[in-house]
Amino acid sequence: MNKLYEKTNAASYYITQGSVNSPKGFRAGGFHCGIKRKRPDLAWLYSEVPANAAAVYTTNQFQAAPITVTKESISIDKQLQGMIINSGNANAYTGEKGLEQAYLMRKWYAEKVGTKEHLVGVSSTGVIGEPLPIEKIRNGIANISVEQEDIINFEKAILTTDTFTKHVCVKVEINGTEITIAGAAKGSGMIHPNMATMLSFITTDADIEQESLQYALSNIINDTFNMITVDGDTSTNDMVVAMANGMAENEQLSVNNPYWDQFYEAFTYVCQSLAKYIAKDGEGATKLVEVKVTGAKTKEDAKTLSKTVIGSNLVKTAIFGADANWGRIINAIGYSGVKVDPMSISIALGSITVVHNGVPVDFSEEEATQYMKESDPVQIFVALQDGNDEAIAWGCDLTYDYVKINASYRT
Amino acid sequence: MNKLYEKTNAASYYITQGSVNSPKGFRAGGFHCGIKRKRPDLAWLYSEVPANAAAVYTTNQFQAAPITVTKESISIDKQLQGMIINSGNANAYTGEKGLEQAYLMRKWYAEKVGTKEHLVGVSSTGVIGEPLPIEKIRNGIANISVEQEDIINFEKAILTTDTFTKHVCVKVEINGTEITIAGAAKGSGMIHPNMATMLSFITTDADIEQESLQYALSNIINDTFNMITVDGDTSTNDMVVAMANGMAENEQLSVNNPYWDQFYEAFTYVCQSLAKYIAKDGEGATKLVEVKVTGAKTKEDAKTLSKTVIGSNLVKTAIFGADANWGRIINAIGYSGVKVDPMSISIALGSITVVHNGVPVDFSEEEATQYMKESDPVQIFVALQDGNDEAIAWGCDLTYDYVKINASYRT
Repeated sequence: MNKLYEKTNAASYYITQGSVNSPKGFRAGGFHCGIKRKRPDLAWLYSEVPANAAAVYTTNQFQAAPITVTKESISIDKQLQGMIINSGNANAYTGEKGLEQAYLMRKWYAEKVGTKEHLVGVSSTGVIGEPLPIEKIRNGIANISVEQEDIINFEKAILTTDTFTKHVCVKVEINGTEITIAGAAKGSGMIHPNMATMLSFITTDADIEQESLQYALSNIINDTFNMITVDGDTSTNDMVVAMANGMAENEQLSVNNPYWDQFYEAFTYVCQSLAKYIAKDGEGATKLVEVKVTGAKTKEDAKTLSKTVIGSNLVKTAIFGADANWGRIINAIGYSGVKVDPMSISIALGSITVVHNGVPVDFSEEEATQYMKESDPVQIFVALQDGNDEAIAWGCDLTYDYVKINASYRT
Repeated sequence: MNKLYEKTNAASYYITQGSVNSPKGFRAGGFHCGIKRKRPDLAWLYSEVPANAAAVYTTNQFQAAPITVTKESISIDKQLQGMIINSGNANAYTGEKGLEQAYLMRKWYAEKVGTKEHLVGVSSTGVIGEPLPIEKIRNGIANISVEQEDIINFEKAILTTDTFTKHVCVKVEINGTEITIAGAAKGSGMIHPNMATMLSFITTDADIEQESLQYALSNIINDTFNMITVDGDTSTNDMVVAMANGMAENEQLSVNNPYWDQFYEAFTYVCQSLAKYIAKDGEGATKLVEVKVTGAKTKEDAKTLSKTVIGSNLVKTAIFGADANWGRIINAIGYSGVKVDPMSISIALGSITVVHNGVPVDFSEEEATQYMKESDPVQIFVALQDGNDEAIAWGCDLTYDYVKINASYRT
């Protein structure tokens, strides 16, 4: 079975330190405004000029108020100049009042930074069904100064039960002009495929035609953010927003441009990195788990199979216990809904083959346990013989801490 | 919102002590044959005369060898006279060899009790993908004596990580003749709707026409065993088998008989009780959880909604934490795939209403916590206004012990 990510070596982009404020003209900050007890809870993102914007939203039918507002903003000029984001309260299932308050957040931040309301997007994450402490947010927004950048606290202020901040930055040369693409994200709980069970903000100084940007984002999400799962719960709130402000002054990119593929590849890397960070930092997780399915009849089959295996509570607890219990992987394939010939299945944990063409292989339990204990990510390879399609899904182990965190999240 | 189970009070059956050996002519036993380290692992069920038989099997596409054998047995005369059951090893994903061994189990038990091979069913539960220790089973079967009943050890020998044995017994008068219906089950892990993620054996001394028995079992399962979930994993092995040996000498029952409804109601009670025991004894569970959805547009919607709520890891951990975090219930409804007007939803925890027609209700957190801590089952009521259909799903909380059990199941 192949090693993952052969392509990375030949990539035309390079990875560098940085976050959403690294692309030219972007600034970001965050601080504590009083929604949470102590930790940062209000974050802002700002571009010196309006940026072409694209977004994808949760498929949960009860989309939270900030999603409605962000959608409306983007719909007008297909641009955003800033985002105002709070954590600690999701402003979800809060009715008319919640919607009004999301509009107020947009209005106050637009006034504060001197832009039009419809150039501002709003994001919230946290507890569902509780009224937003709107006065605290009003005071918070009043204290924002786009001159006072604080990227560390931007990244912290979007978190809920995350244990680390998540960012990525790449640079790529487009026809002689260097552009930067960066992203920051929060994840942790209520993470399950089907867009977009987390918040992710992606910025770039590239000049990208808006429809192409939306096209790229919508496509890439299917292979990145939609391929992660933490607990099978799809949140009401989450979104991925991409902003391209053009300040790198490259020749405008669109799907027909000869340099499009270079941009697309780098953009994919950014999304995939954020998605993997989110999976790795799943609530209570001790490690990232990757399930790669190859030889599937269709791409859809490969995705369904990899997501079913990574979504199995029994597989996830076995990984936590470093127990090479491959019967649970077989079992998950069995109930995935994808028809598979049992005699066509090979399974490996890292480089340790445990099933070959449907027949259990004699392997060293000790070695397998050691692999599962010491590796991060733990990689599960499932090879079929039904076709040439493949997919990778990401998730995490299921641990005592998942239960601990979620048995007492609100308190 | 209504109280559950109003119907029980008017039932025409009565509940009594007993198990699968209570109906006339049935015997059962079990003991340790060496598959597990110490606990009982081989169980047998026997009827003095061949019994009309019905069965429903797991929907997992990798059905284990014993399922193939049991299916074949029943297909011949639609009858069974006995079941041979082992725990500790699922004989699943064991290829041709596993199938041969399941046939051997059937043959040896048939010879031992002096019946035809095709009147014997085989069941296995335990680890997937390991060879069956067939010599131990052969020796075990050689030691069976149908004169030496041991119902306690029958019930114990079918268990895996269950913490208690599960049985139920009811009696009902059919046109002046008393019949008995009883059942025993094992559950615990890999429990998720879609037939039949556990083993259940139901016996009755009623004379029931075979097609009617299969019809009843197939129908009742949809509202009982298929409405429970523990961890979302559907096992390769599980089955519900019903045997009706006619020794009560009632007038034969079939769907057109005037007393059919009485039998059907009692049979439903047996299945529902076993299903609830299985949910309550879900791996690591501290309590049973019931989710009742009313006012749904269709029965299918009500079922999907109740199963989605009970299947949410986040709802399940909140119940373990006695946290009235109803936002997670709303969230699960939101991603269930069933279209629901958010303003039509009311939610109650026991008698404590937390959301009324889409609006959060001011309730005492303290009282709600107390309810969730002290009640077993914890009842969640979701009332919609879209129609008249309803459904109940059963599950359990998600606890540290679920992780503990499943991080080290094989060792």
